[in-house]
Amino acid sequence: MKKLSEMNHEELVAFQKDAEKRYNDFKALNLKLDMSRGKPAPAQLDISMSLLNALDNETLCSSNGTDYRNYGILDGIPEAKEMFAELLGVESDNIIVYGNASLAAMYDNISRAMTHGILGNKPWSKYDKVKFLCPVPGYDRHFAICEYFGIEMINIPMDSDGPDMDMVEKLVSEDETIKGIWCVPQYSNPSGISYSDEVVKRFAALKPKAEDFRIFWDNAYCIHHITDTPKLILNIFDECKKNGTEDMVYEFTSTSKISFPGAGVAVMAASKKNVDSIKSQLGISTIGFDKINQLRHVKFFKNAEGLKKHMDLHKEIIAPKFDVVIEELEKNVLPLDAASWHKAEGGYFISFNAMNGCAKRIVSLCKEAGVVLTGAGATYPYGKDPDDSNIRIAPTYPTVDELRKAMELFCICVQLASVEKCLSK
Amino acid sequence: MKKLSEMNHEELVAFQKDAEKRYNDFKALNLKLDMSRGKPAPAQLDISMSLLNALDNETLCSSNGTDYRNYGILDGIPEAKEMFAELLGVESDNIIVYGNASLAAMYDNISRAMTHGILGNKPWSKYDKVKFLCPVPGYDRHFAICEYFGIEMINIPMDSDGPDMDMVEKLVSEDETIKGIWCVPQYSNPSGISYSDEVVKRFAALKPKAEDFRIFWDNAYCIHHITDTPKLILNIFDECKKNGTEDMVYEFTSTSKISFPGAGVAVMAASKKNVDSIKSQLGISTIGFDKINQLRHVKFFKNAEGLKKHMDLHKEIIAPKFDVVIEELEKNVLPLDAASWHKAEGGYFISFNAMNGCAKRIVSLCKEAGVVLTGAGATYPYGKDPDDSNIRIAPTYPTVDELRKAMELFCICVQLASVEKCLSK
Repeated sequence: MKKLSEMNHEELVAFQKDAEKRYNDFKALNLKLDMSRGKPAPAQLDISMSLLNALDNETLCSSNGTDYRNYGILDGIPEAKEMFAELLGVESDNIIVYGNASLAAMYDNISRAMTHGILGNKPWSKYDKVKFLCPVPGYDRHFAICEYFGIEMINIPMDSDGPDMDMVEKLVSEDETIKGIWCVPQYSNPSGISYSDEVVKRFAALKPKAEDFRIFWDNAYCIHHITDTPKLILNIFDECKKNGTEDMVYEFTSTSKISFPGAGVAVMAASKKNVDSIKSQLGISTIGFDKINQLRHVKFFKNAEGLKKHMDLHKEIIAPKFDVVIEELEKNVLPLDAASWHKAEGGYFISFNAMNGCAKRIVSLCKEAGVVLTGAGATYPYGKDPDDSNIRIAPTYPTVDELRKAMELFCICVQLASVEKCLSK
Repeated sequence: MKKLSEMNHEELVAFQKDAEKRYNDFKALNLKLDMSRGKPAPAQLDISMSLLNALDNETLCSSNGTDYRNYGILDGIPEAKEMFAELLGVESDNIIVYGNASLAAMYDNISRAMTHGILGNKPWSKYDKVKFLCPVPGYDRHFAICEYFGIEMINIPMDSDGPDMDMVEKLVSEDETIKGIWCVPQYSNPSGISYSDEVVKRFAALKPKAEDFRIFWDNAYCIHHITDTPKLILNIFDECKKNGTEDMVYEFTSTSKISFPGAGVAVMAASKKNVDSIKSQLGISTIGFDKINQLRHVKFFKNAEGLKKHMDLHKEIIAPKFDVVIEELEKNVLPLDAASWHKAEGGYFISFNAMNGCAKRIVSLCKEAGVVLTGAGATYPYGKDPDDSNIRIAPTYPTVDELRKAMELFCICVQLASVEKCLSK
């Protein structure tokens, strides 16, 4: 294969014809594969099965006699708070253990900011408009929350070490209506990029014009490494302490991709001041979350070290899948010099950047041949990728063999869409 | 004992002196008992312990292969929807299985009505003021939600067969800003009153001025009987169908007081139109609730009949406690003819009406002697009982012996507060 840019018209036509033939051969296989979401594979769920019986013969009481089967304890059982505090490098006092979904915790905090404001500041709904900064490509469910509440989203380009911090610093310092930013600092969804130390330090040193500006630090993949030498991001709260900005950060994580999606435990970390305020409001909507499930998790994982060890088992299952994606791309797309991607070292995604104007076409070609990808555009606010370029590849759910086939197809679709683009110039 | 009203001054003083002596004797016992909330007793939690292992050797997939350990299914697993549909007498399509707390489901619906409105109607937050009708005495956590969102609460007196329906009908037909009413139709919290057939029919036939008026039908105690011959309320959706008013009702229940508070399953029933709209919004805040816990409940209870049978075990434990309360009141307060109460046939509370102006004093006297009751006034919006009369007695948590002691003390405090009141006239 030659670079597309170096092919003449005849070569392009010939390449197209060949790719079409290979595409049609694939269609005849009648593949049926859903790679639209970042779902763990059944094999990953199997390794947590004994979590379900972790409470056998266990007392369901705390050391002070609190019965975890009964009502009470708004912010999580002490053992769970301790485990997650250790994981996130904060104190137990900084932890609220939520229900089964960190997304719900994020939603909840934005919903309350809309109706009641943060720490005594004006409710966001009382402004004509409030805005969030959205590093792109990003996580569609983050953007959906903003869209639902009518929060205007401003795209922030992602560099190789995190969001464009010059732009972030400038915008938040000037505009009082910018109230938040979405960050997935470790193995970003979908780019897989981890924020450099400098980026984390610049976040912690932000001087936003809005007192109620909050960094939504969605640390969903904090221990979701797929290499043996993970590069860890800095603890943002440590950096904030140096700047006196602890109130500016809401950190979230969960065990959704550690134990079971839907039956895991979600966690928020924040300054004591934020935690106290959130608890006083949270108590209106619930008496408490599922303490028995919290205890189940603590008995199974024991501590932060146990959580990390468990992730090694996940790594063994999913790292080969990430390899398949990269191998296929390097074999079938790299030579064309018509696309780029980031070789993720953790998380759940590989972010693929096609030639501008090709993403929708690629996703549609894949779909027609039986492989459903995340919709093109989904990684951008309002579902609008201005370049129609980014595609989120979610390699974890299929088996290695299924994934190999799907990626072969994907590469053919990339070839087809790219050559079409060249021919239409 | 004579009726207080028939005692002369000397008799009152003598009675007071005697009651004070008995009160001081109690104080010397150093009781320490919290009867402030309606909590199941440990013995009630013990009967559900095998629920925790209900998934042993079970497949965690649906019949169509959906893996309940993974992401997906916003509105509950089909088996759980079916069980709760049967329980509430609706179709599966009318059910949303929520997380662990029906309170959170109620909060969620009010929160979204505030920010987004119901079925295309104007968001409640866009009104200068919206109002809820609150049958009193009622449930403090319902009122707290309204207070949190600045929803004005209007007291509706409870008759012996439900709320004053003349007043309800008049108010909702006249005032477009009245957006809802809180109802606990079976064994009301705290009065223990169940709505008569006529009351349910009149609710279903309401013609509210506001299209987005909703009856929050909190059927928390639908199968929480403590007699062998329970009087069941009518199925409100059946009645609504006759009036074409199915959209007007949001019904809630949960297994919090069937399996485990905090680790149970909450449910909402509503018209298909409401369910569809709620699901479309709910999907912004979560991918789904805990399906494994839903399955655990289905495997343990099997079906609606299983839930009802399980409640017989609860009845055996708590019915004797309700008897103790009534016995003590009949022995030590009835002769004074200075208070009233409703002999509940189910639910979690006995509602006690002291002489006007005595509730706070009684609660304070009890507290001083080591028994914490629900705060006086808590059963009214804004914590303000206009008569300072109502006290919610929660008999389930203490043992029978503890409860006997606590009720002896309670009766002495009632005697004391009542005689003080008579003497101060």
